[in-house]
Amino acid sequence: MTERTERSEGREGMPSRHGMTEGSPTGRAVSRRGLLTGGALTVGGTLAGAGAGAVAATRTDAPAVRPEPVPVAQVGDAVEPFHGARQSGVTTEPQAHAAFVAFTLKPGVDRAALGRMLRLLSDDAARLTQGRPSLADTEPELGLLPARLTVTVGFGPGLYAAAGRADRRPASVADLPAFRVDRLQPRWTGGDLLLQICADDPLTVAHAQRVLVKDSRPFAAVRWVQQGFRRAAGAEPGRTQRNLFGQLDGTANPKPGTPADTAVWVTDGPRWLRDSTTLVVRRISMNLETWDLLGRADREVAVGRRLDTGAPLTGAAEHDEPDFAALGPDGLTVIPDFSHLTRARVTDDRLRILRRPYNYDGAPTAEGHADSGLIFAAYQADIARQFLPIQRRLAERDLLNEWTTPIGSAVFAVPPGCPEGGWIGEQVLG
Amino acid sequence: MTERTERSEGREGMPSRHGMTEGSPTGRAVSRRGLLTGGALTVGGTLAGAGAGAVAATRTDAPAVRPEPVPVAQVGDAVEPFHGARQSGVTTEPQAHAAFVAFTLKPGVDRAALGRMLRLLSDDAARLTQGRPSLADTEPELGLLPARLTVTVGFGPGLYAAAGRADRRPASVADLPAFRVDRLQPRWTGGDLLLQICADDPLTVAHAQRVLVKDSRPFAAVRWVQQGFRRAAGAEPGRTQRNLFGQLDGTANPKPGTPADTAVWVTDGPRWLRDSTTLVVRRISMNLETWDLLGRADREVAVGRRLDTGAPLTGAAEHDEPDFAALGPDGLTVIPDFSHLTRARVTDDRLRILRRPYNYDGAPTAEGHADSGLIFAAYQADIARQFLPIQRRLAERDLLNEWTTPIGSAVFAVPPGCPEGGWIGEQVLG
Repeated sequence: MTERTERSEGREGMPSRHGMTEGSPTGRAVSRRGLLTGGALTVGGTLAGAGAGAVAATRTDAPAVRPEPVPVAQVGDAVEPFHGARQSGVTTEPQAHAAFVAFTLKPGVDRAALGRMLRLLSDDAARLTQGRPSLADTEPELGLLPARLTVTVGFGPGLYAAAGRADRRPASVADLPAFRVDRLQPRWTGGDLLLQICADDPLTVAHAQRVLVKDSRPFAAVRWVQQGFRRAAGAEPGRTQRNLFGQLDGTANPKPGTPADTAVWVTDGPRWLRDSTTLVVRRISMNLETWDLLGRADREVAVGRRLDTGAPLTGAAEHDEPDFAALGPDGLTVIPDFSHLTRARVTDDRLRILRRPYNYDGAPTAEGHADSGLIFAAYQADIARQFLPIQRRLAERDLLNEWTTPIGSAVFAVPPGCPEGGWIGEQVLG
Repeated sequence: MTERTERSEGREGMPSRHGMTEGSPTGRAVSRRGLLTGGALTVGGTLAGAGAGAVAATRTDAPAVRPEPVPVAQVGDAVEPFHGARQSGVTTEPQAHAAFVAFTLKPGVDRAALGRMLRLLSDDAARLTQGRPSLADTEPELGLLPARLTVTVGFGPGLYAAAGRADRRPASVADLPAFRVDRLQPRWTGGDLLLQICADDPLTVAHAQRVLVKDSRPFAAVRWVQQGFRRAAGAEPGRTQRNLFGQLDGTANPKPGTPADTAVWVTDGPRWLRDSTTLVVRRISMNLETWDLLGRADREVAVGRRLDTGAPLTGAAEHDEPDFAALGPDGLTVIPDFSHLTRARVTDDRLRILRRPYNYDGAPTAEGHADSGLIFAAYQADIARQFLPIQRRLAERDLLNEWTTPIGSAVFAVPPGCPEGGWIGEQVLG
């Protein structure tokens, strides 16, 4: 669009952060024109890997070199697959917006009814994720922009019971033990069925939520809905997500490929388990009021990482290995034993969890106190083997607990995907 | 990012809506590769106006030719000005996300206190909109991506009273008369001060909201917050916004330049009025339950426009002039006298209003009923002369009233902008 191009480029006379290389708070020497030019190299399909050379950091404490920008050619048109051996929305690069919708099955909904419901929801998802309106979509124009929409279906313990398929429930998909830090509210807890709806466009998420909730109504009541966000598509490509405390969140995620693959997915067993995973959704209230009273150094000690770069306190870059033995001038370890980094640490790749969190930010109180936090969503092959040991260590002793409170919790099996013509859950219920 | 490029282009084997030109519900013959190539032409600065030729509609009922995509080079880095004769966030191309935050002044907050408050808020806004953390920002990393952030300040009637400046209040900034369609709830109504915070990134909006609310706390209580969204940046560039009814919304907006300029802005008078405007914020609940029971033809009759293209029922394209005299085969006018189009119609350019609405979508009820609607925000030079006549006609008789209910209402003066070193409101309070 002419307007946008003008807006991006026609500001010679305007104050710009890019004019302030020397004194800029980030120390980034990046010109917008340089970014646009770098972007052009990738548009035609010639991926300019070395183009990042144009993006240079000028100060030693600058954050990791920023990757050249993605030409977000058409955010609305980008498509994620729906059909396949594994469900999308798990290892999919997180989209900007998410709605987690949990349902309680209505009394009398049995295996046959569940089959009808899941055929319907799978058909909706198969269409909407590919940019096609659902069958009898009442707002078909809102179904045309997929924006990387994914719909991921999770089964709570109650669904297996209602279906008479308790034997096919993954053993670790059961109510979590109570943790002493928990202040769980029923309004954010539990659920027989979950739909995780994610897309880079909020209107796409809203429409998909509407369609899927409508088609669920004969079978289930809405139990809770949690809506969350991350950085917009194209805003900060290639960076780890930041939460509302300002922390980088998800640095220790497993990288694609083995053994991470086996950390997230069940890779063998019967067909209702193979290519499945499990999901823990916890709503973590973050107390910005008390957090904001804390000095920067104290925050970094609580986390064990630098706030700006996400580097461990003993390192220089986000993905540097922390040195837990390193001592400071005071003779104490540089990274405290009770830091979040230390307590959440997993060294065995097969035991990592895939964090896929979203921020939430409700309306502040009349006094101006924020209602902010994290929809913590973690995927792993086995909750008991991977999530629970971490959670136990954090609940027992994690400096961050001072400012965070779990107020909701739910667990789901994420059954395998389905081929074209199939439906999610067919291996479990069929 | 390599991943994203692969995701956009490496799907040869995947089902894609772009492969379905013939049977596609929109009839758009657009290939993703074609879009990317078209986009490349604009990246280098050579604006390919004729590049749209590559995007051809194949069916006569296809929507308006879609413009070639904008290379959203870096959504996060784009900047809107803060300083200037007029405030930003009014004629600024609407960003994807908005928070409307209304405050009630605390007792005893007088002109001097208001001056301190507005100096503080102006300083915050001047920094954050340019991608710099606020002074003593407690999460400075969240202040680095402006994403076209604008902070627009509005003054409610109560502010002028508290400041002892009732004589400087624009006459039309006063409580609206009650309309018979109104079901106003105090929780969405009124306010002494408004901050309209808009950006293309939701985390940027959340952080700006946090900073501005914190700095307001000594002076004012939060009265209400309304958070809304439109299509993501880059999702559907150049298109009029769609609301959750699926309608195009804002087609009749004044176009930039005179006389539209005088419709939005006060262009003469004393310095506290010149370059000011006024804002009406109404929360319109949209009853998707009953709307979805309505057939497509009936909806189009209620609106007076085609749902797909937004064209008047007598035309072929969104911006075609409606023909209110045209008769159908049944001898009735094609566009009903009580259609929304007819009732909202303004023919005198100087009397138009600038609609800048955002969608809202809360959590559905347990029964799956949506909590959806529109944060209707309209800018005009004079509420009494421009907004009220339209609103009176709509309240009196508009077929759409059957499915929409105003549940909140507030009016604000939007004072002139300020130069660098100045502050919003200095002409009113100084």
